[in-house]
Amino acid sequence: MPFYIGLDLGGTNIKGGVIDDRGKVKANDSVPTPSKEGPEAVIGAMVDLAHSVASQAGLDMAKIDGVGIGSPGPIDFENGVLASAPNIPEFNNVPLRDRIAKGTGRPTVLENDANAAALGEYWIGAGRDASIRHLITLTLGTGVGSGVVVDDQIIHGALGRGGEAGHMIVVPEGGRKCGCGQRGCLETYASASHTARRAEEAMEAGETSSLNQIREQRSVTAKDVFDAAKAGDTLANRLVNETAMYLGIACVNLSRLLDPQMIVLAGGMVQAGEFLIDRVREAFTSRSWAIMKDHVRIVGAALGNDAGIIGAAAVAWHDRT
Amino acid sequence: MPFYIGLDLGGTNIKGGVIDDRGKVKANDSVPTPSKEGPEAVIGAMVDLAHSVASQAGLDMAKIDGVGIGSPGPIDFENGVLASAPNIPEFNNVPLRDRIAKGTGRPTVLENDANAAALGEYWIGAGRDASIRHLITLTLGTGVGSGVVVDDQIIHGALGRGGEAGHMIVVPEGGRKCGCGQRGCLETYASASHTARRAEEAMEAGETSSLNQIREQRSVTAKDVFDAAKAGDTLANRLVNETAMYLGIACVNLSRLLDPQMIVLAGGMVQAGEFLIDRVREAFTSRSWAIMKDHVRIVGAALGNDAGIIGAAAVAWHDRT
Repeated sequence: MPFYIGLDLGGTNIKGGVIDDRGKVKANDSVPTPSKEGPEAVIGAMVDLAHSVASQAGLDMAKIDGVGIGSPGPIDFENGVLASAPNIPEFNNVPLRDRIAKGTGRPTVLENDANAAALGEYWIGAGRDASIRHLITLTLGTGVGSGVVVDDQIIHGALGRGGEAGHMIVVPEGGRKCGCGQRGCLETYASASHTARRAEEAMEAGETSSLNQIREQRSVTAKDVFDAAKAGDTLANRLVNETAMYLGIACVNLSRLLDPQMIVLAGGMVQAGEFLIDRVREAFTSRSWAIMKDHVRIVGAALGNDAGIIGAAAVAWHDRT
Repeated sequence: MPFYIGLDLGGTNIKGGVIDDRGKVKANDSVPTPSKEGPEAVIGAMVDLAHSVASQAGLDMAKIDGVGIGSPGPIDFENGVLASAPNIPEFNNVPLRDRIAKGTGRPTVLENDANAAALGEYWIGAGRDASIRHLITLTLGTGVGSGVVVDDQIIHGALGRGGEAGHMIVVPEGGRKCGCGQRGCLETYASASHTARRAEEAMEAGETSSLNQIREQRSVTAKDVFDAAKAGDTLANRLVNETAMYLGIACVNLSRLLDPQMIVLAGGMVQAGEFLIDRVREAFTSRSWAIMKDHVRIVGAALGNDAGIIGAAAVAWHDRT
């Protein structure tokens, strides 16, 4: 049976795991990212972690079919080079693919974490069914990450800047300011952080809400907004509906352009269950197309806590198959 | 030298041509579409036209490398079947690819006309440079057609319903009603017919404009709106700027998702020159991304009157290369 190592590089931790071809996690570990010690230390930690998880899984490294890396930051895919990593200073133009390949002796592929997440769901998550060859993930976290699989291929675009559905503009004028420099990006309505911020802003502007009690003690989170919406809070429900509306429009636009079979919503706001997803489906369906019947399935992510390492391992799997 | 036959099936006429591998039109003809006589008559006319243009080009049919068909309507790409054609009654589930292949004895490919237009520009039009492998066309006509080339492949999507950028929603709430059943589609702001209609509606609502003089005599056209804008008319300029804004947002969204090298604007509203394109570029640039430098080139179509047959021939070329 093939085994893959997934390495999920984050600003705080590096997670590593060995995954078999049916998606079973055979070993799973994590080390702090030595961000301040420079690129060589980070590379060394990643190589050590790969060897460590192989050993924990009782496997000789030679038995590993490939290593996949899920990484933040812009990537030069052709050369396997990480151009920069937002939370790891000095990590500029590091030939991460070849260095990990050298350190492990195994074929290695470098992918960004949003695309790795999409490949994880595609491999053994919500889109595991072999009939699925067109799948898009939207991960609602601090930002909105996305990964686009078209006919079994990840879309990188001409210079590797594609697959950024979170920065599609959904509000043409007077939209919220996004960290990317644009206004009205999907991310500014559908990320967890912006959802919390929209609640804070509405209360600052004088709107009443049960969330005001929380706000007196600490910052409101997206989870608070969803909990309040479920409990019937008017403001929270308006915000959740607005988030669902923009996600529904994003699903329409992705369907018109790429006609996927499945759109997978991931991230903490979705883990709460079908609450948000139901409203997104409704927003999608209520706008839907008279010309041809829509067939896309809008579903929640199937992978949970291990999504990072499974996604990274999926990068290796996808490259080897 | 390879030669290709392009057949451009329209509701009124069938156009046919023989194109060589450098894009030279060796023969070019057209016959009325016998729409009312049923599918067999239409197929017969297409086969006859193919033989006729080959003969006009002085070529034996055996010298033709392939036949490409550009056709309206939803297509079953796998089976080469035209599901329906809006302006040709009774044309339902016609195995057009195989029937034309049989009638000509040459390999035949069926593609929709918007995708054929994209392949034409990709082959020997604005995107002819071999370094271009990611190109999107937006054709601004009665509707807004689009064709999406990603890494040398046309995007059809899971069930052949992709590549419909004209039906991406750019106005989330209260947008214009589109023929497709949605509201706020790009098409309702950027097609020639909707541009004319928006002018009519504004004048009906009491806005003053030099276009009112035309309106007393006949229906206003998109060309009238652009002519008036160039002459300084305030309403016409507002409408052109609005059209450019939504096209600019569409270019942003296409770039975020697919990172193309080139977006080609085609159709009558663009043939007028750089007037609209300049404003679209400005709308794009003014929204643009701080995270990575944008590189996409927004340009006008290079193919003129023969775009239909060249696009259809490009379908055959793309399939044979």
